[in-house]
Amino acid sequence: MVDQNPSFVLRKPLDVAIEERPIPEIKHPRDVLVRVRVTGICGSDVHYWQHGSIGNFIVNAPMVLGHESAGEVLKVGSDVKSLQPGDRVCMEPGVPCRYCSECRAGKYNLCADMRFAATPPYDGTLAKYYVLPDDFCYKLPDNVSTDEGSLVEPLSVGVHVVKQAQVKPGDSVVVFGAGPVGLLCCAVAKAFGATKIVAVDIVPSRLEFAKTYAATGTFQPTRDSTPTANAAKIIEENELGIGADVVIDASGAEPSIQTCVHVARNGGTFVQAGMGRSEITFPITAMCVKELTVKGSFRYSAGDYHLAVELLKYGKVSVKELITGEYQFAEAERAFEAVKDGKGIKVLIRGPED
Amino acid sequence: MVDQNPSFVLRKPLDVAIEERPIPEIKHPRDVLVRVRVTGICGSDVHYWQHGSIGNFIVNAPMVLGHESAGEVLKVGSDVKSLQPGDRVCMEPGVPCRYCSECRAGKYNLCADMRFAATPPYDGTLAKYYVLPDDFCYKLPDNVSTDEGSLVEPLSVGVHVVKQAQVKPGDSVVVFGAGPVGLLCCAVAKAFGATKIVAVDIVPSRLEFAKTYAATGTFQPTRDSTPTANAAKIIEENELGIGADVVIDASGAEPSIQTCVHVARNGGTFVQAGMGRSEITFPITAMCVKELTVKGSFRYSAGDYHLAVELLKYGKVSVKELITGEYQFAEAERAFEAVKDGKGIKVLIRGPED
Amino acid sequence: MVDQNPSFVLRKPLDVAIEERPIPEIKHPRDVLVRVRVTGICGSDVHYWQHGSIGNFIVNAPMVLGHESAGEVLKVGSDVKSLQPGDRVCMEPGVPCRYCSECRAGKYNLCADMRFAATPPYDGTLAKYYVLPDDFCYKLPDNVSTDEGSLVEPLSVGVHVVKQAQVKPGDSVVVFGAGPVGLLCCAVAKAFGATKIVAVDIVPSRLEFAKTYAATGTFQPTRDSTPTANAAKIIEENELGIGADVVIDASGAEPSIQTCVHVARNGGTFVQAGMGRSEITFPITAMCVKELTVKGSFRYSAGDYHLAVELLKYGKVSVKELITGEYQFAEAERAFEAVKDGKGIKVLIRGPED
Amino acid sequence: MVDQNPSFVLRKPLDVAIEERPIPEIKHPRDVLVRVRVTGICGSDVHYWQHGSIGNFIVNAPMVLGHESAGEVLKVGSDVKSLQPGDRVCMEPGVPCRYCSECRAGKYNLCADMRFAATPPYDGTLAKYYVLPDDFCYKLPDNVSTDEGSLVEPLSVGVHVVKQAQVKPGDSVVVFGAGPVGLLCCAVAKAFGATKIVAVDIVPSRLEFAKTYAATGTFQPTRDSTPTANAAKIIEENELGIGADVVIDASGAEPSIQTCVHVARNGGTFVQAGMGRSEITFPITAMCVKELTVKGSFRYSAGDYHLAVELLKYGKVSVKELITGEYQFAEAERAFEAVKDGKGIKVLIRGPED
Repeated sequence: MVDQNPSFVLRKPLDVAIEERPIPEIKHPRDVLVRVRVTGICGSDVHYWQHGSIGNFIVNAPMVLGHESAGEVLKVGSDVKSLQPGDRVCMEPGVPCRYCSECRAGKYNLCADMRFAATPPYDGTLAKYYVLPDDFCYKLPDNVSTDEGSLVEPLSVGVHVVKQAQVKPGDSVVVFGAGPVGLLCCAVAKAFGATKIVAVDIVPSRLEFAKTYAATGTFQPTRDSTPTANAAKIIEENELGIGADVVIDASGAEPSIQTCVHVARNGGTFVQAGMGRSEITFPITAMCVKELTVKGSFRYSAGDYHLAVELLKYGKVSVKELITGEYQFAEAERAFEAVKDGKGIKVLIRGPED
Repeated sequence: MVDQNPSFVLRKPLDVAIEERPIPEIKHPRDVLVRVRVTGICGSDVHYWQHGSIGNFIVNAPMVLGHESAGEVLKVGSDVKSLQPGDRVCMEPGVPCRYCSECRAGKYNLCADMRFAATPPYDGTLAKYYVLPDDFCYKLPDNVSTDEGSLVEPLSVGVHVVKQAQVKPGDSVVVFGAGPVGLLCCAVAKAFGATKIVAVDIVPSRLEFAKTYAATGTFQPTRDSTPTANAAKIIEENELGIGADVVIDASGAEPSIQTCVHVARNGGTFVQAGMGRSEITFPITAMCVKELTVKGSFRYSAGDYHLAVELLKYGKVSVKELITGEYQFAEAERAFEAVKDGKGIKVLIRGPED
Repeated sequence: MVDQNPSFVLRKPLDVAIEERPIPEIKHPRDVLVRVRVTGICGSDVHYWQHGSIGNFIVNAPMVLGHESAGEVLKVGSDVKSLQPGDRVCMEPGVPCRYCSECRAGKYNLCADMRFAATPPYDGTLAKYYVLPDDFCYKLPDNVSTDEGSLVEPLSVGVHVVKQAQVKPGDSVVVFGAGPVGLLCCAVAKAFGATKIVAVDIVPSRLEFAKTYAATGTFQPTRDSTPTANAAKIIEENELGIGADVVIDASGAEPSIQTCVHVARNGGTFVQAGMGRSEITFPITAMCVKELTVKGSFRYSAGDYHLAVELLKYGKVSVKELITGEYQFAEAERAFEAVKDGKGIKVLIRGPED
Repeated sequence: MVDQNPSFVLRKPLDVAIEERPIPEIKHPRDVLVRVRVTGICGSDVHYWQHGSIGNFIVNAPMVLGHESAGEVLKVGSDVKSLQPGDRVCMEPGVPCRYCSECRAGKYNLCADMRFAATPPYDGTLAKYYVLPDDFCYKLPDNVSTDEGSLVEPLSVGVHVVKQAQVKPGDSVVVFGAGPVGLLCCAVAKAFGATKIVAVDIVPSRLEFAKTYAATGTFQPTRDSTPTANAAKIIEENELGIGADVVIDASGAEPSIQTCVHVARNGGTFVQAGMGRSEITFPITAMCVKELTVKGSFRYSAGDYHLAVELLKYGKVSVKELITGEYQFAEAERAFEAVKDGKGIKVLIRGPED
């Protein structure tokens, strides 16, 4: 039937199924109805599936998963001017309230009333149809495929991290964690003009990929070495002088975060991009005496999605290499299994088909 | 004898004495010879006296103590234009190399070749005569006494902290630790336009003083309460809404630092100004998700001393109230004892006499 | 009749009248219906009345005038949480689209789809009832009268100018033009910590008022003197050293703008806040060699209205002194005549009555 | 004779000659003696030669010309650690006082006591030997030739302009004037991540070169068109939407500067980099209403030379293409003639030989 909306629903932890949901409607004159074509799987999707919650966000009712999607515009509201049916688009999955002081000040990622796809209680995008406002729908340039469009979401995470880090041309940047976000941070840092980009990970195959992708150097910490010693080695092997201008942790691992502080130069910047344990042992005096700037990075905000699309359009960043697996919508659970098992870098789910 | 320079020397830990040292000479055309009149005692002076070291800075040879001094210009080098003999001045105690990239970029507090008074191996200012470059010597306005001039040093620490915190008019600021630096942070935050300034300490008498001095509210944490609970109380009692715009830790205490993170609003700023244990348990995920900006603050840099003098000149900050004890140079060791015993807020040493 | 909305309408240039208009309705769940109590007259209201246009904004159809209003909440939409009937409020008169890149980036004053009260084709607030979104409605603190509330609009203009100028504690600020905006710039600069604030005007009585209000110094340019010479005198008489840190033109006059460039120190900031001729002779080489930062300032944006209310609440700025005339709604045209004739500083219109 | 220092001296306007001068000596422990190998000619050199002055800088005594030089270290002072004899270096030609508030704040290009090579009364670098402090001497990487090293000076001008403009990845940038500085601004903007770079000039051959070099688009203004019309065409032809994010004038021409204001988007940035007439007609209201940030750019400051060398080292900018002529030192006057006649882009003078 034409008016059905097959959706991949998390019913409760470990229990997912494809359900028919109603096709969402255009309710606001600036809404856009999108036919979803492809969706990437994020670690958070897998985490909700496995555990039913992330921090204070708890899945109390069935919720559609997925938030890294791209597709085609099917229908637009009466006040939509920038899009028309048939346009290929990627979809920014979090729509803020537009009224609070954070929204008005241009930091809508900090909006307390954010409605974010596949963060409970809001349904995600792993479905056939999805409605969102036109300004959260970005037209894909001709030279950017719809598949690549689905990677604009993690790319925007990287853009936001690198903006938070204020990476400037000529900077040296060390990135801990060479998963999708860490790799994209490397690529965006390069696009921002960083000249030395060191990827750090404990998995050699990830480092090998990082080097072919966007890193100019790599480092594999030894577990029996201290953060201070690992930091010294990173600095020495990569000729970072008094330390790195910018350090990014995309691992969430305690030893990485500690090493970050010691790798940064006096007056350098450290951005925490990965989430792990809620509390860790932190070298606060080193941070203080070096007068570091330490920042959190949470999702993305004004301009990030737009810039991510521009970076793809102008070839400043490439994301194709990160796509390592593809599944049909009907096999979505298998795709989730693959991600859970750590297979590949980014897994896409196609469809659902008509 | 006219050419002697009595100096208060730390010979080794716990062993101080007044020694005659040579009168320092003007060697550079922009040097200034100052007749020191008054010197405040800093916690770091007491720490060197008691322990012989702070972090990596170790007293390996006898060292004159003191770095919070004011006095009169006795003699100036051939290229000095802004000062003349008889001018009352306060003295910025750290002279950087002027050549490294930090110095050239205006962040000379991060200079690796800093020569800082009473930080080994450099002699301090607790002596009759001291030489420094004219640009580190600030003429005191007529309405600022020489005693107040000696407090420009800790006031500059507060100025630097508040600048690091980018306190803006209308901001709410919570300051942990109501010792000299914490109190001065409160006063400077007020001068920067903060409208709510909450002082936090575990000593009630300090909070009472803070309230009469510069705080608009106070909070005494209960030891049996968690950082999260204390943060919630601080926010509620002081009507801070979604949290404080700026949080400053001038205590160095682990529970304070943890509470800081929870008191700050989403997107807020937290500056670490106090030094305690080198590593602490830190709520990294809260920092990340709230997208805080966390900064260290180390001494002071370009413009801080100048602004501190201006704040006194224009009555934007008052420091007189902080002077709670005075000793003659001959009794310097007794002054140090008093500070060690936690008596009063700021203790001054006068002289030495002619 | 209860459902009538008496409004002060500009029918065409020089032709105004009180007309009955429909009471506006709450259409959006976050709308608020306000009973207007008092409205200040702005130079732009008078300009539309006299000339029917400002720049590209042309009054082609009857338009209610007025945009500096305060009143009481009568009714709120279903999603309004921060306000309730009876609350006294001031009203920010320009509501942006919330969707464009400027709105999303926190610079909604640059929104191309701004609906600004009493800027054609949008009706103003000089009426009995007015509807606007709750986030553009600011509750007045108990210690701020509704009359003062009507001055939050011009005060917000001053806040925006001073923010654009990035006035910092200790700065010297020279303000050209001592009309309402110039005076409020002086007051806000003082609240931001400026220590020297020089008001410049050609009318001695304005300078006298400025000095009693917020200026620390004044200057009356002589017409037969050059901008360079006037600049030198301003610097010398006010001991500005190498020039002013910040210069603000709130006059729009060509000689003032030229003098601004010469008064600013190397590396200083100059904000153009007043509007006059569209093109003037400008000392571009001096601007370039001094490496000035020159900025325009247009209305107000995120946080400005909020801060203006805070400055009043905490007594950092006072606006009462600026109210020099009051008229009843029935006499609104006389009030406009008074402003046109340059009588007083700020004229208020009360009502309309029930 | 070994101890002679042949120098190209401007004796008075239009009168140049090669003279033997004494070899400069190392006077400060951080001084470096350089054997100059190659020097580029700048428009200012030619201007002093032709007119004997630029603005307030007047050649009252014979002065060695040249300030775009590179060579080899011959000898270093006792405290020089980063360089040794034989190192190939480029030389930053202006040494500031290091003591004033501008120097201390990291803006040494605004130092009032700057000693700048070939700006009267200071001798330039077009000689066999030259002494300067080690921190103004930059070691050239192996992959950067000494010839390229002489172009680090104009490249640093471009770096400073683009930094002033705060060009960010994804920005659109329009540069007026396609001479050496304009071209280098295009190249640096590209290295900073600008995706659209439009060069504007009235000489078609320059635009052709710009397009092969670093511009993504070009525009030749028609003299009979207004600045507003030319701006509209630039925006339309290059699909700049609501206008360019950044506009740079490297021409100094009045119509260019006027067009700049109209090309910039609301909230955009305009940097004045070229010098022409000291006063021009300027569209001040457009600047104000668009809330532009307009900045001057003067020489270069902390970090600019370093970044210029890095951009060459990492292949982010190429300067080889700009070298269009070479002369031996003995023919220096002919080289100056060539530049005066507008032949080529950048002309180098080699030597003098041993």
